[in-house]
Amino acid sequence: MRGAAEATGDAAVLQAMLDAEAALARAQAALGLVPAEAAAAVSAACRPDAVSLPGLVTRSRSGGNPVIPLVQDLREAAGPYGEYVHRGATSQDIVDTALMLVSRRTLGPVLADLGRVVERLTALAAAHRDTPMAARTLTQQAVPTTFGLKAAGWRKLAADARTRLSAATDALPAQLGGAAGTLAAFRPEGTDADVVLRLPGRFAAELGLAEPVLPWHVLRTPVADLAGALAFTAGALGKLAADVLVLSRTEIGELSEGVGGGSSSMPHKHNPVRATMIAAAARQVPPLAAILYGSLAAEDERPSGAWHAEWQPLRESLRLVAGAARDAAELTADLRVHPDRMAANVTVPGTPGPAPALVDHALTDRGRTDLDRTAPARVDRDRTASAGHSDRHEHE
Amino acid sequence: MRGAAEATGDAAVLQAMLDAEAALARAQAALGLVPAEAAAAVSAACRPDAVSLPGLVTRSRSGGNPVIPLVQDLREAAGPYGEYVHRGATSQDIVDTALMLVSRRTLGPVLADLGRVVERLTALAAAHRDTPMAARTLTQQAVPTTFGLKAAGWRKLAADARTRLSAATDALPAQLGGAAGTLAAFRPEGTDADVVLRLPGRFAAELGLAEPVLPWHVLRTPVADLAGALAFTAGALGKLAADVLVLSRTEIGELSEGVGGGSSSMPHKHNPVRATMIAAAARQVPPLAAILYGSLAAEDERPSGAWHAEWQPLRESLRLVAGAARDAAELTADLRVHPDRMAANVTVPGTPGPAPALVDHALTDRGRTDLDRTAPARVDRDRTASAGHSDRHEHE
Amino acid sequence: MRGAAEATGDAAVLQAMLDAEAALARAQAALGLVPAEAAAAVSAACRPDAVSLPGLVTRSRSGGNPVIPLVQDLREAAGPYGEYVHRGATSQDIVDTALMLVSRRTLGPVLADLGRVVERLTALAAAHRDTPMAARTLTQQAVPTTFGLKAAGWRKLAADARTRLSAATDALPAQLGGAAGTLAAFRPEGTDADVVLRLPGRFAAELGLAEPVLPWHVLRTPVADLAGALAFTAGALGKLAADVLVLSRTEIGELSEGVGGGSSSMPHKHNPVRATMIAAAARQVPPLAAILYGSLAAEDERPSGAWHAEWQPLRESLRLVAGAARDAAELTADLRVHPDRMAANVTVPGTPGPAPALVDHALTDRGRTDLDRTAPARVDRDRTASAGHSDRHEHE
Amino acid sequence: MRGAAEATGDAAVLQAMLDAEAALARAQAALGLVPAEAAAAVSAACRPDAVSLPGLVTRSRSGGNPVIPLVQDLREAAGPYGEYVHRGATSQDIVDTALMLVSRRTLGPVLADLGRVVERLTALAAAHRDTPMAARTLTQQAVPTTFGLKAAGWRKLAADARTRLSAATDALPAQLGGAAGTLAAFRPEGTDADVVLRLPGRFAAELGLAEPVLPWHVLRTPVADLAGALAFTAGALGKLAADVLVLSRTEIGELSEGVGGGSSSMPHKHNPVRATMIAAAARQVPPLAAILYGSLAAEDERPSGAWHAEWQPLRESLRLVAGAARDAAELTADLRVHPDRMAANVTVPGTPGPAPALVDHALTDRGRTDLDRTAPARVDRDRTASAGHSDRHEHE
Repeated sequence: MRGAAEATGDAAVLQAMLDAEAALARAQAALGLVPAEAAAAVSAACRPDAVSLPGLVTRSRSGGNPVIPLVQDLREAAGPYGEYVHRGATSQDIVDTALMLVSRRTLGPVLADLGRVVERLTALAAAHRDTPMAARTLTQQAVPTTFGLKAAGWRKLAADARTRLSAATDALPAQLGGAAGTLAAFRPEGTDADVVLRLPGRFAAELGLAEPVLPWHVLRTPVADLAGALAFTAGALGKLAADVLVLSRTEIGELSEGVGGGSSSMPHKHNPVRATMIAAAARQVPPLAAILYGSLAAEDERPSGAWHAEWQPLRESLRLVAGAARDAAELTADLRVHPDRMAANVTVPGTPGPAPALVDHALTDRGRTDLDRTAPARVDRDRTASAGHSDRHEHE
Repeated sequence: MRGAAEATGDAAVLQAMLDAEAALARAQAALGLVPAEAAAAVSAACRPDAVSLPGLVTRSRSGGNPVIPLVQDLREAAGPYGEYVHRGATSQDIVDTALMLVSRRTLGPVLADLGRVVERLTALAAAHRDTPMAARTLTQQAVPTTFGLKAAGWRKLAADARTRLSAATDALPAQLGGAAGTLAAFRPEGTDADVVLRLPGRFAAELGLAEPVLPWHVLRTPVADLAGALAFTAGALGKLAADVLVLSRTEIGELSEGVGGGSSSMPHKHNPVRATMIAAAARQVPPLAAILYGSLAAEDERPSGAWHAEWQPLRESLRLVAGAARDAAELTADLRVHPDRMAANVTVPGTPGPAPALVDHALTDRGRTDLDRTAPARVDRDRTASAGHSDRHEHE
Repeated sequence: MRGAAEATGDAAVLQAMLDAEAALARAQAALGLVPAEAAAAVSAACRPDAVSLPGLVTRSRSGGNPVIPLVQDLREAAGPYGEYVHRGATSQDIVDTALMLVSRRTLGPVLADLGRVVERLTALAAAHRDTPMAARTLTQQAVPTTFGLKAAGWRKLAADARTRLSAATDALPAQLGGAAGTLAAFRPEGTDADVVLRLPGRFAAELGLAEPVLPWHVLRTPVADLAGALAFTAGALGKLAADVLVLSRTEIGELSEGVGGGSSSMPHKHNPVRATMIAAAARQVPPLAAILYGSLAAEDERPSGAWHAEWQPLRESLRLVAGAARDAAELTADLRVHPDRMAANVTVPGTPGPAPALVDHALTDRGRTDLDRTAPARVDRDRTASAGHSDRHEHE
Repeated sequence: MRGAAEATGDAAVLQAMLDAEAALARAQAALGLVPAEAAAAVSAACRPDAVSLPGLVTRSRSGGNPVIPLVQDLREAAGPYGEYVHRGATSQDIVDTALMLVSRRTLGPVLADLGRVVERLTALAAAHRDTPMAARTLTQQAVPTTFGLKAAGWRKLAADARTRLSAATDALPAQLGGAAGTLAAFRPEGTDADVVLRLPGRFAAELGLAEPVLPWHVLRTPVADLAGALAFTAGALGKLAADVLVLSRTEIGELSEGVGGGSSSMPHKHNPVRATMIAAAARQVPPLAAILYGSLAAEDERPSGAWHAEWQPLRESLRLVAGAARDAAELTADLRVHPDRMAANVTVPGTPGPAPALVDHALTDRGRTDLDRTAPARVDRDRTASAGHSDRHEHE
């Protein structure tokens, strides 16, 4: 499977820009705005080998974005149909649409990884519903809890992340507006205005993206929503990582990563590397999201700075979250739990009280927790049965 | 009406903590966990004059939070029923619940202000559906657009902000978990566990807050979601402000604030002060949100730093967004539009193309734009009629 | 002693604005730009009781800053000399100068606290030069080190923070430029231009602030430098706190705070509250510094947003760093070290190698550590001689 | 010349890691810790073709850093001398040292670009010392200033940036400490301790980096200082960009970029692309610096997250600042000034007052502006004495 770096790398962005240019020509043809053979020629021209990626990067510099040289190359590649390449569009239409495509393509596997994390944590929480361990507050042991309740909390956050990221992914729209976001240049003489108004939807459909209500070149709701969902996901997995890191400490030893990392100087070490990488991502994504939220305040019909400041933070956030989700899937797939150490470490007497019942409650509270489309129904049903909660609804 | 600073100030937080302590006693009494007269006595004790606010701040320092000295004072005030104050709870239960109360109380007026902004921008967009003006990209005039389309974009962002902030507000939950989040200490000997499980819901109901699925002392979804909605709102209003600031420039003069600010050195000046204050908020809230997203990665059952780092950024974000929403309501209520200057400034020939039709589309696209409960139906109907869009659904 | 909240609070800012207005009149009189009796009258009028603080906050709203209503009140208080209040100045001159005064007044005690931290950590490092303990990397025990080396590292960071914060404090300048930063309005008819050029220096001298090279209303070097020094200090103390938090864990127990915090639910607990509060500050100050660095990019002769966005983050950063320095002074003054637990916890065999020699090196390398990155040669040689380290030169 | 992306790219980091491993062997040989022929063999092995970069990235994942597989490859390449590769070192020694090398190599051209910017702005300020133009505050025209004073302000910020970045560059140290930062593993049986203490200095000298006072694996002063200097530089150039963007507006037209960018949809446009790219960088670097300042608070002898979170933000900050400095050099080298438009735009009467004298003052105040914040006293005294400033040099 492709890694996160590849999914968000320059080649992936180039491919997405090519897909956008090709889809634009096809959508225009479907609405009768350009000839069908022009669309076919443009689509055929939009192949990666039509463009030199390193050259594109260099040539992007003078105009400030990569679409200007890309269009030059594609027009040449399309030969007699060159005039139909990028017809009516502006650079931002292509860059924005491409970044949404890259986001969607990156987030598919991320959502699958989060699904695996939720599934695994559901099982862990159920299995350790009653396993006693010390709760810890401000680094000091507090009254006892159960490991199941801790795992149920991790699961809740992972499920919350999946819900938010899934909603943001489904909403990713294509962008099409032309030079000033009015769609004016897409309309050949004598065409009915409504035909042009249908173009963004058709363009989006070609790419499997959502149709925008308005051209969003300076209405950055999609990017901001995605930023928030990514920051949430990094942070939510960061909670799991933070706890694994504490509980893996040599002196605590209640958890260990199944496949710990090595050390270039200390072969005896068994480092919690997956948790470390997740923790590193959780530190980086929120400030990157702040940049993206900040770019909402974009002046004019294309701002001089705010838009350009989105590209790299968005790609980097996607890369980090994709890595963290993969790390979390691997971490939870092979997390070693040590109930003996948990029991032996307890220094503050007490009982976990209703902690097991809280676990049951959390695992069955599908609707409010997850808005979950891939409901872990079997597990929940089993748990419900065994817990005998005939009155569950009373306390919801 | 109360200002944003007051709504999020120390006295407001103290009042909310008192409300939380009183609600806890009442909720426990309602479930038979404490005697009814104890709840009445505790409720009566939870009055601001039972506590010295400056003293509380000073005494908070040694324990790191204000609840420890607060409970001391309230126990004294409750006399023979002192033992029922804060019974079973931990400081975080009270601080978190109080901050959610402060958030809800602050955000009510904010949502109303956002509603006013949306309403006013709807009217502006409709009125200027066809008013031509220069679009500007990278500071340079591009092909023409209409002011109505610009206003429709502002409206879309304000409506998006209202939707997100409203959802986050409705979801604000009470927090109740006790020392380790297990609810253990709320359960007197011999009480059925399920009675205790119903306590958080009852506590929340007493305060008009949402019931949590699990104690969320270290599952900070509510704070992170609120942070995202606040950053979004600041940024969305920041777009409006950014455009007003450009278009108010002396040399452009297409817009002016109805009641501009003065100057201590230049009485002739008419400054766009409301837009300036919104722009300042839009710069501050996203990094504050980054702090709050960062606190998701909280170790243990109470982290040593991440939780404490939430208090001030959350209050400050609320204050800034409340101020920005108020400023935006005032700004849009009295924004002066100068169509003559708009027309005179245009240097790039062209027509706005389907821009007016996009305005119609945006203003009628209720469902997808707003999830709007206070649908501006009349305006939409009027616009639909005049635009003759019998086929609107085709292009949605 | 005044707390951090008071030192950066509204009353402190008002006092500083009054001091700035009074100093301006005196400076102008000293250069013959206004009559001496006018300066005396203005100085006398600049008393806190001339102004209602809550009223000022309310009246600040319409103009976007507090100086406009302040000047109104002071002109009234100055009676016949009212015209000499704020003469030639702009609001920003007063707000900027006042914030620099507040910064200087807040940072004096902070630097003293940092001095105490360095002193105490020097003693701790020397005392535990040879005390063996486990080094820990990625949460796992690594080969041994000594507690002295760890303390020497904390000391290095605290000394680095003191150096940076001290330099930034010394450089805090007054601001004076008038409406457009040209000093034009300070020059009465017939006055020599050079007299006016001397005014900022005289104004600064009245207030004990540094003279600016240029009016810095939109050249925000002083604010950015201060932001960096504050972020550095919060982070440097955050390293100390992070280690104390790990080593105070119940299961590790190698350190404890002398006066730990209590708990509202668990009287047995001994929480590392000082370290927790420092850790919370270390999470908040860097993003606040990012806002301030971001405000360097300020358009025009006064930006519409970037300047206003500085006020609160600057005050909040000062407040947080002042609290953290105080907490660090208290923490280090009474930190309990448990060498027995350190020894007992070690699980990885080995020796700390040259760790004690590194401690010696760090504690004697004062020149390079604390004060001066340039020309360390002389200082080092002096120190070597006095410390009797005949072999130090070999390893420098 | 190499671009910023290349200078901070994966291949550049790999080269720096190879340089670090080779330098370590040479330094150890120079001190007699390993045989000379071993050092020669290791040095010879440290060539890029000994390692597959894509393979290295993949193999880095399991251990969390690239040094573990790199050392495997180098040991193989060194054949019989394989045991001398990475001898005594830990992965962090190599990664940290390599990032400092990458920083130094990237910043050399950046400092040269900043020098060109300062030089060009000096000339612009002098040439337009008396060129009148409108000052603008809160977007509205204020009293007049001169373009020379504006350029002198830009110059001051660029000079401040160069000073700060130059100091941070000169201080970039090598890192060497071994597994726990004690240098223990570098000491063969029977070697004198002081020989090992000299190893970091020798290692640094091999690479042209500064010698560290202590191993700084968890004392991140160098990274934090660099972060601050980079954020400052981005912001300082951002001020220049912000003004160019305003003054290039179609309706203002007082400045234009000599070689403006094109547009994929509007060939008539002349976009201020260099300023736009600088503005985009100024939005991104401060939050990245916040991540790096946040990593100061690193627990243990190697933190599980804070260190890993530095790599990408540091490289990205370097890349952005290098691009911005290059853009600023190009922008200022060919900035078109339009004094006629400046004069024609003025709507507020008045004179720039002492603005030209302030220009003179700024351009001659080189000592305090650029290089030295200490000891302003003498300069100040001179300034005061020579009140009659017939000649600029008097007040230096």
